[in-house]
Amino acid sequence: MIAQPIAYAERNRDLYLTQLIDLLRIPSVSTQTDHDNDTQAAAAWVADSMVAAGLDNVQVIGTPRHPLVYADWLHAGLDAPTVLIYGHYDVQPAEPFALWDSPPFEPEVRDGYLYARGASDDKGQLFVHIKAVEAYLQTNGRLPVNVKFIIEGEEEMGGASLADFIPRHKDLLAADVALVSDTAMISPNQPAIVYGLRGLCYVLLDVTGPSRDLHSGSYGGGIDNPLNVLGHIISQLKDQDGRILIPGFYDNVRPLSEQERDLLGQLPLDEETWLKETGAPAIWGDPDHTLVERLGARPTLDLHGVIGGYTGPGAKTVLPSTVHAKLSMRLVPDQDPQEIANQFKAYVAEIAPRTVRVDVVAEHGGNPTIVDLDMPAIKAAVSAYEATFKQTPVFMREGGSIPVVNQFKQHLGLETVLMGFGLPDDKIHAPNERFYLENFYRGIQTSIHFFASYSEL
Amino acid sequence: MIAQPIAYAERNRDLYLTQLIDLLRIPSVSTQTDHDNDTQAAAAWVADSMVAAGLDNVQVIGTPRHPLVYADWLHAGLDAPTVLIYGHYDVQPAEPFALWDSPPFEPEVRDGYLYARGASDDKGQLFVHIKAVEAYLQTNGRLPVNVKFIIEGEEEMGGASLADFIPRHKDLLAADVALVSDTAMISPNQPAIVYGLRGLCYVLLDVTGPSRDLHSGSYGGGIDNPLNVLGHIISQLKDQDGRILIPGFYDNVRPLSEQERDLLGQLPLDEETWLKETGAPAIWGDPDHTLVERLGARPTLDLHGVIGGYTGPGAKTVLPSTVHAKLSMRLVPDQDPQEIANQFKAYVAEIAPRTVRVDVVAEHGGNPTIVDLDMPAIKAAVSAYEATFKQTPVFMREGGSIPVVNQFKQHLGLETVLMGFGLPDDKIHAPNERFYLENFYRGIQTSIHFFASYSEL
Repeated sequence: MIAQPIAYAERNRDLYLTQLIDLLRIPSVSTQTDHDNDTQAAAAWVADSMVAAGLDNVQVIGTPRHPLVYADWLHAGLDAPTVLIYGHYDVQPAEPFALWDSPPFEPEVRDGYLYARGASDDKGQLFVHIKAVEAYLQTNGRLPVNVKFIIEGEEEMGGASLADFIPRHKDLLAADVALVSDTAMISPNQPAIVYGLRGLCYVLLDVTGPSRDLHSGSYGGGIDNPLNVLGHIISQLKDQDGRILIPGFYDNVRPLSEQERDLLGQLPLDEETWLKETGAPAIWGDPDHTLVERLGARPTLDLHGVIGGYTGPGAKTVLPSTVHAKLSMRLVPDQDPQEIANQFKAYVAEIAPRTVRVDVVAEHGGNPTIVDLDMPAIKAAVSAYEATFKQTPVFMREGGSIPVVNQFKQHLGLETVLMGFGLPDDKIHAPNERFYLENFYRGIQTSIHFFASYSEL
Repeated sequence: MIAQPIAYAERNRDLYLTQLIDLLRIPSVSTQTDHDNDTQAAAAWVADSMVAAGLDNVQVIGTPRHPLVYADWLHAGLDAPTVLIYGHYDVQPAEPFALWDSPPFEPEVRDGYLYARGASDDKGQLFVHIKAVEAYLQTNGRLPVNVKFIIEGEEEMGGASLADFIPRHKDLLAADVALVSDTAMISPNQPAIVYGLRGLCYVLLDVTGPSRDLHSGSYGGGIDNPLNVLGHIISQLKDQDGRILIPGFYDNVRPLSEQERDLLGQLPLDEETWLKETGAPAIWGDPDHTLVERLGARPTLDLHGVIGGYTGPGAKTVLPSTVHAKLSMRLVPDQDPQEIANQFKAYVAEIAPRTVRVDVVAEHGGNPTIVDLDMPAIKAAVSAYEATFKQTPVFMREGGSIPVVNQFKQHLGLETVLMGFGLPDDKIHAPNERFYLENFYRGIQTSIHFFASYSEL
């Protein structure tokens, strides 16, 4: 029964690629309002592809920002489990455009990779499951499990609309497990199942001194400089080894067990290759933890952007009025984003001098997660990867955040299987994002196997 | 002999105002190439006014950018001293236009002030001396001293053409003292002579980590963040009280004598008014020095601009590749800009972690200056102010730099008398620039007195 969908998917490789390229042409950047027509177009495109796959009840659901897309197929029988599949059609901004080797929204295949913004994060990966479902429905006319899709368009801007939708539609979204492909494998032939995700606390920090830019010659030495103050604040947030200095920050960090340290120690991470891929001069971080632990199992604090004063060409000697900084803290169980935001605000208020005004706004948060490795859907995912890649997946923690995983847990009681098909060097969120095409096709096979295996467990 | 020029100037107040308004109508913005015709027009206008005043050898001298204007009158006799008068006819950009109460190039008199871009900086102040010379030549037919004028059109863009001209025309510009009116008094009735100017060491500082922006979730904790590193570097350049931490930085700072501290202590600076004008929450700086000392007689270090990472709207979680900072140090005698640049580079190289690459480029410098208060031209300036304002001028140090003062010293061996007629709230470089008209007229009188007094000392 699995042979037909596998063969169907195999036969249609070229068609699937053409279709994915179509979707990637839509610049559905959720954070930039001038792309609002594009997010609408991407939602409609996804809905159309679900209809074509044979799914039922396909709906584009309006929200205050970008639409959700829902679809289901619920004819596998009462005994069959239900899988809730999540993905997002919105993408990160593509700036700076000049650093792309081919334009971000004109997808191009080079050396087996498909280059485009959103190729890996997450259009390529969400499309995998639509095509797997299509392969079943267009051959066997049925799936071995019930499926529901919920696809959002605000993942890259915090996911507010879906966060609002989930608790108000528990029935519609009810399932036995959630399935998300928005993570990376270890290497092209080494799959990985992510069982831990970091949470997030995102903060905007503005420092304002004088009410206008002053001449630094006339006022320097008599008025504090917001950029200098920001430097002092930054230096007190995290020491140079990466230990975060906010009082109480580590209080709720669940210590790593010996067993988990062993598990993480077995991950085949070649530090030299990893470093080379980043282009940074050196690996860095808290010396009390291994690199793998630091990347997924420990909290961090990173500045994302700073702008202030004169940043044009040449020399201008202003004492700037104001400076804007964006930063976030990645959290691990059992840190709470709201509590961390409060600690951050209190600490900055304490260390900021009275010579400036400091404004802190906590933008959005996400709770950290850990998944139970013994549940049937995880076993099904292991066997699906093994069937396709001829390789047992490793278990790892991811440094990033997928807030929806938390919401599924909190409101629907669902555990999530994070079955990624990306690669660590996909350059998501950066210029030249790409998706390894062979694993796009193998992803579809893996999804086909997963539905079969899960129905049998 | 002085009564006639004084009376002449008094009689012609309205005419002088009409003429100055004419000059201010020309939008001679030197940094904006679409105003190149206007700088040409302003130079021609100044030259015409010199011819009308009765000056000899009036020349508009072409340069790669904006012309210089030269003129002289050298018939005072071999024993009479020669004064080299400097000014600039170019102005700052007037943007943002919307913040002007009357258009910047349509001069308007309101409440005794003349509002226009360049009114105080420096068209109004340079015109003072042309009119003083005219008053002598149109009445007595002669001046008590020899005078030379050198007027430039690039002051607001760095003054490259004049800097190039001076060392190649030492003979043409030879004089006994230089006279510059491009500074401010304390208040409408309290004149000031600036006897110290700070020098400058301008630095570009770039911090680069990974070769591209990375996802902070995937790499945070394993790769050092250039923005966090920049914060640590900034915090080690200057402590929170404003003391600069670069080793050796203060070694050549000439200590303030008790006499000079007394002199500066007498400056009538109302700290509350001063603070209010900046809009900052508090006065700030090295507690070992008074505000007046810190603003002119002590070195500073100020960041002027920082840009790096994601600075667009919304939240983006990049670990940025690179960050650019501009900063400068204001220097006092006897600090040397080149030596300070070297100290800065060595210190940053020492404190920067090996996890990033730090590039430091020293852009341009200027030496700090102190004028000898005992020289005859200073005494002449004091008595000229006293004769006009019935008030002894105070001596003050200026925080900014006037590079031409340095060039006169270095290439022509000249000390400069900085005899300003502006006011602290003239809003130079800002919207609603203005010049207090009463002091325009009193400036002409002061200049007339100065020439007379200087010839007698």
